[in-house]
Amino acid sequence: MNLIKVGIIGGTGYTGVELLRLLVNHPHTEVVLITSRSEAGREVADLFPSLRGFTDLVFSKPDEGMFSNCDVVFSATPNGIAMTHARQLLEAGVRLIDLAADFRINDVATWEQWYGMSHACPELVSKAVYGLPEVNRDRVRGAQIVANPGCYPTATTLGFLPLVKNGLVDNGDLIADTKSGVTGAGRGANVANLYSEVADSFKAYAVTGHRHHPEISQNLTAVANDERPVNLTFVPHLTPMLRGIHATLYANLSQPEMPIAALQELFVSFYANEPFVDVLPLGSHPDTRSVKASNMCRIALHKAGGSGKLVVLSVIDNLTKGAAGQAVQNMNIMFGFDERDSLLSAAVLP
Amino acid sequence: MNLIKVGIIGGTGYTGVELLRLLVNHPHTEVVLITSRSEAGREVADLFPSLRGFTDLVFSKPDEGMFSNCDVVFSATPNGIAMTHARQLLEAGVRLIDLAADFRINDVATWEQWYGMSHACPELVSKAVYGLPEVNRDRVRGAQIVANPGCYPTATTLGFLPLVKNGLVDNGDLIADTKSGVTGAGRGANVANLYSEVADSFKAYAVTGHRHHPEISQNLTAVANDERPVNLTFVPHLTPMLRGIHATLYANLSQPEMPIAALQELFVSFYANEPFVDVLPLGSHPDTRSVKASNMCRIALHKAGGSGKLVVLSVIDNLTKGAAGQAVQNMNIMFGFDERDSLLSAAVLP
Amino acid sequence: MNLIKVGIIGGTGYTGVELLRLLVNHPHTEVVLITSRSEAGREVADLFPSLRGFTDLVFSKPDEGMFSNCDVVFSATPNGIAMTHARQLLEAGVRLIDLAADFRINDVATWEQWYGMSHACPELVSKAVYGLPEVNRDRVRGAQIVANPGCYPTATTLGFLPLVKNGLVDNGDLIADTKSGVTGAGRGANVANLYSEVADSFKAYAVTGHRHHPEISQNLTAVANDERPVNLTFVPHLTPMLRGIHATLYANLSQPEMPIAALQELFVSFYANEPFVDVLPLGSHPDTRSVKASNMCRIALHKAGGSGKLVVLSVIDNLTKGAAGQAVQNMNIMFGFDERDSLLSAAVLP
Amino acid sequence: MNLIKVGIIGGTGYTGVELLRLLVNHPHTEVVLITSRSEAGREVADLFPSLRGFTDLVFSKPDEGMFSNCDVVFSATPNGIAMTHARQLLEAGVRLIDLAADFRINDVATWEQWYGMSHACPELVSKAVYGLPEVNRDRVRGAQIVANPGCYPTATTLGFLPLVKNGLVDNGDLIADTKSGVTGAGRGANVANLYSEVADSFKAYAVTGHRHHPEISQNLTAVANDERPVNLTFVPHLTPMLRGIHATLYANLSQPEMPIAALQELFVSFYANEPFVDVLPLGSHPDTRSVKASNMCRIALHKAGGSGKLVVLSVIDNLTKGAAGQAVQNMNIMFGFDERDSLLSAAVLP
Repeated sequence: MNLIKVGIIGGTGYTGVELLRLLVNHPHTEVVLITSRSEAGREVADLFPSLRGFTDLVFSKPDEGMFSNCDVVFSATPNGIAMTHARQLLEAGVRLIDLAADFRINDVATWEQWYGMSHACPELVSKAVYGLPEVNRDRVRGAQIVANPGCYPTATTLGFLPLVKNGLVDNGDLIADTKSGVTGAGRGANVANLYSEVADSFKAYAVTGHRHHPEISQNLTAVANDERPVNLTFVPHLTPMLRGIHATLYANLSQPEMPIAALQELFVSFYANEPFVDVLPLGSHPDTRSVKASNMCRIALHKAGGSGKLVVLSVIDNLTKGAAGQAVQNMNIMFGFDERDSLLSAAVLP
Repeated sequence: MNLIKVGIIGGTGYTGVELLRLLVNHPHTEVVLITSRSEAGREVADLFPSLRGFTDLVFSKPDEGMFSNCDVVFSATPNGIAMTHARQLLEAGVRLIDLAADFRINDVATWEQWYGMSHACPELVSKAVYGLPEVNRDRVRGAQIVANPGCYPTATTLGFLPLVKNGLVDNGDLIADTKSGVTGAGRGANVANLYSEVADSFKAYAVTGHRHHPEISQNLTAVANDERPVNLTFVPHLTPMLRGIHATLYANLSQPEMPIAALQELFVSFYANEPFVDVLPLGSHPDTRSVKASNMCRIALHKAGGSGKLVVLSVIDNLTKGAAGQAVQNMNIMFGFDERDSLLSAAVLP
Repeated sequence: MNLIKVGIIGGTGYTGVELLRLLVNHPHTEVVLITSRSEAGREVADLFPSLRGFTDLVFSKPDEGMFSNCDVVFSATPNGIAMTHARQLLEAGVRLIDLAADFRINDVATWEQWYGMSHACPELVSKAVYGLPEVNRDRVRGAQIVANPGCYPTATTLGFLPLVKNGLVDNGDLIADTKSGVTGAGRGANVANLYSEVADSFKAYAVTGHRHHPEISQNLTAVANDERPVNLTFVPHLTPMLRGIHATLYANLSQPEMPIAALQELFVSFYANEPFVDVLPLGSHPDTRSVKASNMCRIALHKAGGSGKLVVLSVIDNLTKGAAGQAVQNMNIMFGFDERDSLLSAAVLP
Repeated sequence: MNLIKVGIIGGTGYTGVELLRLLVNHPHTEVVLITSRSEAGREVADLFPSLRGFTDLVFSKPDEGMFSNCDVVFSATPNGIAMTHARQLLEAGVRLIDLAADFRINDVATWEQWYGMSHACPELVSKAVYGLPEVNRDRVRGAQIVANPGCYPTATTLGFLPLVKNGLVDNGDLIADTKSGVTGAGRGANVANLYSEVADSFKAYAVTGHRHHPEISQNLTAVANDERPVNLTFVPHLTPMLRGIHATLYANLSQPEMPIAALQELFVSFYANEPFVDVLPLGSHPDTRSVKASNMCRIALHKAGGSGKLVVLSVIDNLTKGAAGQAVQNMNIMFGFDERDSLLSAAVLP
């Protein structure tokens, strides 16, 4: 089989290097182009010595039409860049997977409000497919644009999905208390993310409003099978670790006396055919290291003593299933490869 | 003023060394005795070189009556030890501050169930005062036995206290999503707490039942001014940091439209005279490092967008306000010292 | 090609789980048996959830003859166990790769002194091949017993090797100031390795004598091409990180004025055909994360200003090139596989 | 006693907040002014919530003459700022303690070469006193300008001092392999110091030239009692911890057979009257946490097996004895206070 040609817009961040880590060993792809304004002319393996021996790529200055001979382009830039490339790529028949947020929110006005900019190609938003394979696998297959989900939305949506889709919980009072590793904050020069600011400490942030909030609400609303509007309380926290999302999800069962074993069975069967969702045995407490550098999402259920409160624990690696790994998974689906290609390594523990 | 004579039972753990750190600089105390079965005969400063130059103490084997000339004894052992010393100490007129859980739960049967042992002196439980000064300052003053609160209960109770006491939230659906540094797990040889097990990772634990749950429920029930029973969902998490508790507390406001500014005002005024509770300005996100090695509890309020869900963030250092610092605060109250003696250092940041 | 049958003695430590991580994706192996006294009967993936979905193995109690149908057995136990299995394995025609130290030191008396026990099969020591492929590739090929090198010895020997072999430095004054991640200390329940003991701190240990000292001296002496005895000062340090060895090596050049470019050229050419040694460009400072979860050793050279002091920086992942990865590399050589099989992933960064 | 008036130039970095932590509890000082261009108008306790309740200071824009009513000014800015204030301060009779490097190097040309700028007041350099109390206590007492030592130079100089001063080692081959916590890199927005760049990793840096190298050489040369020029190899490393310097020092004994006990005795007696140097018992391995947030330097000696190589381990907290604590110690000396004022807390462990 011929290798498909892959381009990457903006590969100097952590999702960029994770994408390269996965793609250099992919059996069906060849990365032909990677851009960076700031690092143009520099060897990729000079910036990221972990890739020495795996790639000869050199960062290019982004240029008109340079991706036209690619089959697919990943955009691993900050928000607001992919949308400026989308029209041209589509016209050239190049498929786009955006790891940022430009195409995640269906309602353009909502997007513009949360992201503080005008959308560059609002007419394409409705064409984009939200790339959570567990929800949209079939639509991803034919997508020209895939909006790769955010990290918090991936962990949170997969944890709530079987409950909300099956109408088992009170949608009006969902809580996601989420914790992220620091790589989620990106590789920009920023005092707040210095080692000396975040190590050996823990804090909440953006309690009154985080951009992943409308994304998660949209996901859950889309699958809710009743009229009750989804009302989510979302509190993210910064955790002194490199990789990992831990979502602790709280919901009130519609039938408080529903046995936890039944819920467990439901989850197991719901995700039975998913290669990257693993429902742990009852009583488990997944740690984020159990998915480090892996594309797996691990989920465990608990019922709080005596009440109808369900607690769902959901962990992913924010750079893998929460970003680059899921993007590769989407690419695999789009091009008819084995969905697990290049994603089948066991987590690195410890 | 003469120095009071202090004894310490079991000073080889992290609360022990923290207690010594505070006491060696206390203007009114002299530590005359410290026991340890395993380290008997060893210099304290040999085990903890941080104390070199500050103490000449040598660990002693615990022995009958050895504390009888002390004014106060701190028990910094695991659960179940202080209760075996209590009668004798009281008979000798020695006051006891137990940093473990032996005297925290009023209902002996409940205690025995959660702690898995028979209580050695059930008749003394009702004489003990729960040493949360912000609730029980006056009773602490005259106490013979002080049950020093747990770390999670301290952070959680202080965060919920003004709300529950004033009947402002639905007591029937309180959630405490709490995160602890690893020192909270103690200094025992235990694979689960190895660096290589917990570093660079995050997990929940004991979701279906943690011993601090009944303690917090008891605290909140005691101050609830209505008939609604307190129903708490409590989920603790282990965080890869040394010190710190971060409690993220969720409650539904009885009056959903109550403005956050009014709640803020209430908290500020509630804690106005407390030397060790600091209510941050609205919009704040306290990080645990802001209280590192300090006896302060910092609290911030947030209202989740549009709803009647209140989010309270409460941070302490688990070894200081969550253990040894609060114990010293209690001692200061008991002996009529300035409540802040030896506790007035600013947090160590970073 | 048929899969070879692999057995593992004692797979509950960090080298065990790393070995499994590598072997479950190996194209030519099947792990048929793994033993553990303490975990017998437990599923491997229950102990290490990172392996869920990759293996159905259950820990077995070690038993006479149980490995007799294996082609190769890895011993991932503490020191002193592999030697008790060696005779029986060899008699059954099973090849042995010992990740511990039982067969690393040629001189049995020296071994017994450093390791504090009698050797169980001294007659086999001389048959064992020290499994540093960069030195002994040909002998590894035919070995019945491979003594897999220690982590410090791997990083240190590879850094000094081209210098000592070519007689370029004063063998009488070599210094290895080495730093290890905490996984190197193993997974035993040990207060000294608790998170709360080693996080956010740094220390030297065993300055007056570490077991890897004679191993390194033996390696260097074996390749030294002159009469000067090797005299090494070896100081190991414990670093608050999970994985990684950083060796900072100091040597006095025999010809102080030798230009660093010539030395660089020598190193590059010396390791030109080595798949797992990467000589970085002059001026580089390899960080340990550049080899995290990878089998690569990265080396950089520096000359201290004006003098004839050469500084060599050498980094590996102690669990991979320093243990399980090198063991798999040795197995690949022994069985005629591609030496890089299952070892070709890029490092996980960050 | 009246409080002396203290000013701080540039208090937004880690040495600034450490200085404030120490000064807010100092019995004889009052901080009356603190400047910052970037944070002018902001409350200090808003930037550093750890100081809430301890100070009402607001950052001021630096302005001509604003420090003229201070008794002493600390400059906690980057290199090159203190020297622009020095003349004016001296003319106003204000004493200056510079925590940066402007006055550390006696030879102005050398300084200009290493620091890449012209010196603004070269005529004052010779008037400044290098503020290492263990060497220059008497001169510090009367100094108008104190050049507070660098962190590496403090740990390294104190470790080598008794040896070099007494001519016990070969000055021509000294090695300092040093490791620093990340706070040493400052609080500037810099990709290289992001959590995600340095956590869980270790590396050397600046091997071919670090600005602390000439400072240490100058210190040792100044005390060397013979004609042999000091030749130092200095290799700094970045360690994933917040605070701490660990210097591992190597020297060849002039008399190789000199017993370690004699050297130990020499060190103990050399530092017998120093309040902030602690020589540990033979065989010790000081960890950096044993001096966390403390002004202590702890030193241990080892002789490498059989040879004449001496290994000295020296640890400090880079922000305390390596910066702000030593600056306060110098101020105490300059103003005739107890040298230990505000510096007598035990280290925070863990």
